[in-house]
Amino acid sequence: MQATTTLSAIEQSKRLAAYTAVDKHILPEHKASPSFIFIYLLELIILCRKVIGIGSGSTVPYVVERIVAQGRELNKDRVFIPTGFQSKELIVMSNLNLGDVDQFPIIDVTIDGADEVDLDLNCIKGGGACHLREKVLAEAANTFIVVADYRKNAEYLGTNFTPGVPVEVVPFAYAQVLRKLHDVLGSPNATLRMAKAKAGPVVTDNSNFVIDAPFPREMMKDPTTILAKIKMLTGVVEVGLFCDMAQAAYFGNEDGSVTVKRKVESKVVEELILPS
Amino acid sequence: MQATTTLSAIEQSKRLAAYTAVDKHILPEHKASPSFIFIYLLELIILCRKVIGIGSGSTVPYVVERIVAQGRELNKDRVFIPTGFQSKELIVMSNLNLGDVDQFPIIDVTIDGADEVDLDLNCIKGGGACHLREKVLAEAANTFIVVADYRKNAEYLGTNFTPGVPVEVVPFAYAQVLRKLHDVLGSPNATLRMAKAKAGPVVTDNSNFVIDAPFPREMMKDPTTILAKIKMLTGVVEVGLFCDMAQAAYFGNEDGSVTVKRKVESKVVEELILPS
Amino acid sequence: MQATTTLSAIEQSKRLAAYTAVDKHILPEHKASPSFIFIYLLELIILCRKVIGIGSGSTVPYVVERIVAQGRELNKDRVFIPTGFQSKELIVMSNLNLGDVDQFPIIDVTIDGADEVDLDLNCIKGGGACHLREKVLAEAANTFIVVADYRKNAEYLGTNFTPGVPVEVVPFAYAQVLRKLHDVLGSPNATLRMAKAKAGPVVTDNSNFVIDAPFPREMMKDPTTILAKIKMLTGVVEVGLFCDMAQAAYFGNEDGSVTVKRKVESKVVEELILPS
Amino acid sequence: MQATTTLSAIEQSKRLAAYTAVDKHILPEHKASPSFIFIYLLELIILCRKVIGIGSGSTVPYVVERIVAQGRELNKDRVFIPTGFQSKELIVMSNLNLGDVDQFPIIDVTIDGADEVDLDLNCIKGGGACHLREKVLAEAANTFIVVADYRKNAEYLGTNFTPGVPVEVVPFAYAQVLRKLHDVLGSPNATLRMAKAKAGPVVTDNSNFVIDAPFPREMMKDPTTILAKIKMLTGVVEVGLFCDMAQAAYFGNEDGSVTVKRKVESKVVEELILPS
Repeated sequence: MQATTTLSAIEQSKRLAAYTAVDKHILPEHKASPSFIFIYLLELIILCRKVIGIGSGSTVPYVVERIVAQGRELNKDRVFIPTGFQSKELIVMSNLNLGDVDQFPIIDVTIDGADEVDLDLNCIKGGGACHLREKVLAEAANTFIVVADYRKNAEYLGTNFTPGVPVEVVPFAYAQVLRKLHDVLGSPNATLRMAKAKAGPVVTDNSNFVIDAPFPREMMKDPTTILAKIKMLTGVVEVGLFCDMAQAAYFGNEDGSVTVKRKVESKVVEELILPS
Repeated sequence: MQATTTLSAIEQSKRLAAYTAVDKHILPEHKASPSFIFIYLLELIILCRKVIGIGSGSTVPYVVERIVAQGRELNKDRVFIPTGFQSKELIVMSNLNLGDVDQFPIIDVTIDGADEVDLDLNCIKGGGACHLREKVLAEAANTFIVVADYRKNAEYLGTNFTPGVPVEVVPFAYAQVLRKLHDVLGSPNATLRMAKAKAGPVVTDNSNFVIDAPFPREMMKDPTTILAKIKMLTGVVEVGLFCDMAQAAYFGNEDGSVTVKRKVESKVVEELILPS
Repeated sequence: MQATTTLSAIEQSKRLAAYTAVDKHILPEHKASPSFIFIYLLELIILCRKVIGIGSGSTVPYVVERIVAQGRELNKDRVFIPTGFQSKELIVMSNLNLGDVDQFPIIDVTIDGADEVDLDLNCIKGGGACHLREKVLAEAANTFIVVADYRKNAEYLGTNFTPGVPVEVVPFAYAQVLRKLHDVLGSPNATLRMAKAKAGPVVTDNSNFVIDAPFPREMMKDPTTILAKIKMLTGVVEVGLFCDMAQAAYFGNEDGSVTVKRKVESKVVEELILPS
Repeated sequence: MQATTTLSAIEQSKRLAAYTAVDKHILPEHKASPSFIFIYLLELIILCRKVIGIGSGSTVPYVVERIVAQGRELNKDRVFIPTGFQSKELIVMSNLNLGDVDQFPIIDVTIDGADEVDLDLNCIKGGGACHLREKVLAEAANTFIVVADYRKNAEYLGTNFTPGVPVEVVPFAYAQVLRKLHDVLGSPNATLRMAKAKAGPVVTDNSNFVIDAPFPREMMKDPTTILAKIKMLTGVVEVGLFCDMAQAAYFGNEDGSVTVKRKVESKVVEELILPS
């Protein structure tokens, strides 16, 4: 584990957010404690199993670090479902139980990062081009929690995260989708995301391309409408807008405090946890 | 060319529909006739080029047969864009010019088959799992024409074509999409389409799976609503419902006549072309 | 479980082979029995874990059936790695622990079917187009065991299984590979495998195509040479010839006996287990 | 077109190599000149058509630039086959005729870049992860020509290009291939190539992963042996070693000269073309 002193302010704030979210949402009591006589009752064991979705991004290693710190005993009846290559590696390296969303279609808690979060807890995700799988695990979860550093905490989406809304598209359709984004949906600067470690466009884990579509601020105030319009386009696989999905977001601040935004009766309330 | 006498009634009706549609929509005057002095004016040549989308299915070979019969002179300035492997092979084998939808984003006419067509010219497509590419070429076309035999001509979708609405899904999300089709969208019998010439599910040309989702007749009377609900599901790539896209449909009948349905000022008018 | 009386002779012979192979190669003593004080010693538990690869095909359900019959207690510390969709479903449905080849790179025993087995225990596989993943799990296994019915037991490959050697190819290269198989490697009848439940060619779980390449009997007597020649072709992903990989093959016979072929000091010895 | 004065020395040397190669290998006389009475003789036209493969990389734009400069009249009967997204875009943007390797299985000349070329004209390719498609077009060509700047001209492969041999692998098999590269084939530092514009590993245009496998200098002196050993591994799709394929390589030098290496009766002769 990295010593606090060697972490940059940003890394520290990511870790803060991650630790706080794990402490609140992945609780010891969630672990199965079947009494001995029930040990053969498979159903009960599975019922008690805590299924946890693990997202992608730079904050997630701290989530896993904190979960591992809860100890082998607590973790041995939990199953962890990854959103992609990075989280799968994290789970395997940490000797946690790797699960599969086909085997565990209902997830208790999914914790994931975000590229930006607005005041209603809508998120932009997809900077890492994993937003399809991330959205599947977010939707499959009873509780979906976002962890990030303070820079991702914005009033409106697109404030600090400027490349635009990530849109995963089938390669055959990319030029048509681009044309509609430009001409019809109001994103004249939408561009195909080009790769850096290979020639040509980024190819996603689902064999698709990614378009980054920036929209004017006025439109970004209503991400749900943008999401629906883009998703309905022929050839669009998934849009990196997660609207009305997160129950809470944890933002680590530079001063060691954590800003928590939670949905309470469909309103978002904000809370500041001071450094202990 | 196959002699008429050796064709079954169904094949004859397919051919009838195909021939009639080509005769009406792929006209000699569409061919470029630049005079000699314009020969170097690239722009003009491209402008005159007729770009034609060629769909998939059992009726399409007759479409290509009829186009080829118009002669090399007419076809040499046309470009043909295929929806998939079969139509690409047909184009290449027939020595027609093969084009690419990225190079010719606007198509003059796309002619394609359908699994069923309702009285408003909405179609079910995707029996061959090519509906994503077919929809891209149908949308890119100024005119989208359907050709089929009389069995595909129905009052409501799902009348004769009973496997259900083909839904292309990302493999990672298939179980979740299936669950939502079963529990939320009203298709309790939706199933993953299994392959016959390989083990496991059908994999599409876009590396995805296909779910066949049958809906009750009442719901199928409003395919546009079903289309929107399914397409919005996370992990759904494309739905095999083509609503409000076809300008005309040609159905070959057993008696040698052709039933033509055409959109005229947003109404569908029906016409019967008697055998000559 | 199906009653013996309702199974056809072929199904009975498949089941016989499967049961016999499980009884010989997946033993109770392979199960971890850590005493209570070792329960927290993670390393030991993992060491004791039996990792079992489960193949594809019509014989494999009987393998899983027999493993399940060994009881929950024996199976709870075992991990099962599937070669594809079918075996993954079997494992999940049977409440066995699903594993991943990235997490368990070394497998104790892999049991799989085959399309044909020759007298040296070389196999043709790939009728189900899963031979790449099957070969990965066969190679990763300390012991690779084949189970099949008596029809797959042949002197030379290609005797009863006539479509040819399955060759998985990258779609971009398929025409070139086909040309070389025809003109250079001696398989003039090699053909691209067409799908039945979709239009166009079969697409594998790795997004590739499959060519079926039959070779003359003389050449099939030396499958290792054919394997190397095909695999070296540009665009070939994997060849459905498993040479020098199986340690034993179990063939269920119509009379209730099981023919066992085993490698003993690089020779193959044959044995007949009579019905009990 | 960029003015010479604004190009860096490296860019100038790339352009030099490209121009010289086009001038030598894509000749005016290759263009079809059918007299008028032959205009309907399709076969002849196709026979005369010059089919040209266009590779990937930073030198290739200059190749296309020089071809375009030969004029519309020469280019209108030529067909250009791209190795990937970049060259396809170049062809389309330059209004050249786009072709497809399935339609034109035999290519007259393919011109491509390389990451490094040794004294026998063996090449390392795959820095852009396109080496499978590049190898298909190189093999399909009667003449395969490499263009590059002087830094790629080396005695042995791996001299200046140090990341290692690019190996395209099926994702399911990557960990096993990596293990064999480390333990058996002598590349202990082989690593999975990670993406920069997405999370996780690079995904190729064929939906695969890429491993970069550096080998010791002694082994790189015999790239043909390394190629065969890697290609035979289960799960390996293609190796970025092009052995005994190039007929000539053109290297632009800083002083404006071009070093040409050509195969003459299976020997490589070197020639220096001085700046005119």
